[in-house]
Amino acid sequence: MPPATVDSAFQKVTEGVQVKPNPYGPNPHDFMSNVSRFKLIESTLREGEQFANAFFDTEKKIEIAKALDEFGVDYIELTSPAASEQSRLDCEAICKLGLKAKILTHIRCHMDDARIAVATGVDGVDVVIGTSQFLREYSHGKDMNYIAKSAIEVIEFVKSHGIEIRFSSEDSFRSDLVDLLNIYRTVDKIGVNRVGIADTVGCANPRQVYDLVRTLKSIVSCEIECHFHNDTGCAIANAYTALEAGATFIDVSVLGIGERNGITSLGGLMARMIAADRDYVLSKYKLHKLRDLENLVANSVQINVPFNNPITGFCAFTHKAGIHAKAILANPSTYEILDPADFGLTRYIHFANRLTGWNAIKSRVDQLNLALTDAQCKEVTTKIKALGDIRPLNIDDVDSIIREYHADQNNEITAAIQA
Amino acid sequence: MPPATVDSAFQKVTEGVQVKPNPYGPNPHDFMSNVSRFKLIESTLREGEQFANAFFDTEKKIEIAKALDEFGVDYIELTSPAASEQSRLDCEAICKLGLKAKILTHIRCHMDDARIAVATGVDGVDVVIGTSQFLREYSHGKDMNYIAKSAIEVIEFVKSHGIEIRFSSEDSFRSDLVDLLNIYRTVDKIGVNRVGIADTVGCANPRQVYDLVRTLKSIVSCEIECHFHNDTGCAIANAYTALEAGATFIDVSVLGIGERNGITSLGGLMARMIAADRDYVLSKYKLHKLRDLENLVANSVQINVPFNNPITGFCAFTHKAGIHAKAILANPSTYEILDPADFGLTRYIHFANRLTGWNAIKSRVDQLNLALTDAQCKEVTTKIKALGDIRPLNIDDVDSIIREYHADQNNEITAAIQA
Repeated sequence: MPPATVDSAFQKVTEGVQVKPNPYGPNPHDFMSNVSRFKLIESTLREGEQFANAFFDTEKKIEIAKALDEFGVDYIELTSPAASEQSRLDCEAICKLGLKAKILTHIRCHMDDARIAVATGVDGVDVVIGTSQFLREYSHGKDMNYIAKSAIEVIEFVKSHGIEIRFSSEDSFRSDLVDLLNIYRTVDKIGVNRVGIADTVGCANPRQVYDLVRTLKSIVSCEIECHFHNDTGCAIANAYTALEAGATFIDVSVLGIGERNGITSLGGLMARMIAADRDYVLSKYKLHKLRDLENLVANSVQINVPFNNPITGFCAFTHKAGIHAKAILANPSTYEILDPADFGLTRYIHFANRLTGWNAIKSRVDQLNLALTDAQCKEVTTKIKALGDIRPLNIDDVDSIIREYHADQNNEITAAIQA
Repeated sequence: MPPATVDSAFQKVTEGVQVKPNPYGPNPHDFMSNVSRFKLIESTLREGEQFANAFFDTEKKIEIAKALDEFGVDYIELTSPAASEQSRLDCEAICKLGLKAKILTHIRCHMDDARIAVATGVDGVDVVIGTSQFLREYSHGKDMNYIAKSAIEVIEFVKSHGIEIRFSSEDSFRSDLVDLLNIYRTVDKIGVNRVGIADTVGCANPRQVYDLVRTLKSIVSCEIECHFHNDTGCAIANAYTALEAGATFIDVSVLGIGERNGITSLGGLMARMIAADRDYVLSKYKLHKLRDLENLVANSVQINVPFNNPITGFCAFTHKAGIHAKAILANPSTYEILDPADFGLTRYIHFANRLTGWNAIKSRVDQLNLALTDAQCKEVTTKIKALGDIRPLNIDDVDSIIREYHADQNNEITAAIQA
């Protein structure tokens, strides 16, 4: 048995019965893990504005900011006030709303941008600069010494105004490791609040993320924020793995909207995190508001919620194959790691198809308030599967087969009595 | 420097210039990694048939099977012939097509199913049984001894017919580790071709996957297959991490369709793998056919390709923010880890919005074959951003602002000459 201090954090003893630790929770041997104390930096109004379809006017930005705040996100990140005059005015307007969430804006590592940002009334400034060879050559054309000098100037300026400051490299996973660690140590020493790692092109895989975050954790004393693009489909997993390695802050957007195919989605990360630490997630975030929040943003940028979206995809809690349906009816935990009720949703047993089984049909028979024996349920299931082999079924098809079969059984009984 | 044997496999020396190894490729220290020799088990016609909307008639199944074969998948997995009479007939029909891909069917660990499967003419049989406490209690109600006994009987029966056989546990990540390793070692000893790990409820995270696959690799001599559901958004990352740990086979379906919100998607895994080993992926799979394949399946099950789908989402190669557009115009690798041309697609610079920059506008000016200096491009960009602050822009808006500005400049010149 591990020592009591570790034990008490990861095992619960209830009335003398020892409950096993959640195997999808933080590993008790991961002393660096922040899975149970992560925070969200919600960037629908910054990264999300870089989504191809996005145009948020002031009214829509305010509506989204309020909805994010009600959901319980820790920080709301806004487009740089240097991007356009309206962006600056909107940033000021959102700062004045008096939300519980802290308001951040995201700027280039440049004094011009920093001066404009500080004047808007934000709680914090997120500074970013490209550190990869690619971006140094083809984007800003500056060397690491210039980057360090600019970073120090901007950080000290923002700090002098009593405002939170984060320094992030861009395209961190294609940057030289020594350059990266050098600049992070430099900015940490002058008192930056957070350093950020950004997988700007979506190339990173989980074990790389773990290694880089763990290494960075040993270099800096400030907190670590991570930003993952989803080009290769790993944005949620990379975020989780970064938390395991000691990052605290994850950048998300609603439905993951952002440049190209976007970043870690708020809902997807909630699905991942609630499997790891349900109590923590439920204590901080209003998960019942997730569906409305996603619909708000989806409507604003004229997209559909993907059919396979975690939690809110139309079939996320639909069970179809006969053996799945049977077990779900006996105990939903058999085929569900998430409880739909946590999100204000319900599960659905899809019984109108040829893969159905007699347990699912028996459940439907009960719902219809008809009396059939198990043997009869099996027989009617055979009839349903035979029709399901010929064409797609709907619920009415199944119900009418069941009712007809039930009527036949009763007619036989009546006939037998009368005979 | 690592020893020459490792070095030669992961570094390329071209005319005396040493090229750095691909940092997203297999780590040269991962001697177990199968990232560069993975194979696909395509399950659209099995797992995909368990998707809520799926009903594939015989003709559609054959069309999909042929399209998968043309894409180059290694195996095609079909619904159990025990599921319904038509399922059995369809399985036989697909076996007779003479495809390059091997044909598998997926059955319960039961002799009745095994006899039907063997008679269809399949190249291989995938056997599955629930091993978690949940499934043992609420699904089939059998203990581990019974499971082992059934597994041995089915495996020896299938092998005696000269057919490939895989044994998989179900809900592997919630099964007792000792039970799991015991049953896998037992079936390995009697000569099963593959053992399978299934994250049936989508609870696993990458580092758990790495640990379980690596542990299993040390127990069995056969190959390892993995099946990941996507309830918590990690199905692609888990698949990649399983390959790093020594698995060889990954189950996928087109667009990830399957029970609930599905499994690792074929396209998503292609995105992940091409970032790791482009040469291997291009040598095996016809990536230009991906979009048509996805559209075929999406139409068959009446869904839209998600807006944020890797590779084929409508904006996967759209670049919007000014600094992104600038760098992409100079060198696409700055903000792309995937080359759209590998998939028969093209990139798009989204310049008609308030986040645009003068480099993107200059590029548009060039496309319109108009002559403006850099200073003039910056001035017209300011006008475009000002309108973009007021309302969403389309390309016509931008073009007319540019043309008007260009005409004004020429009029001024003409006026100056005439004066």
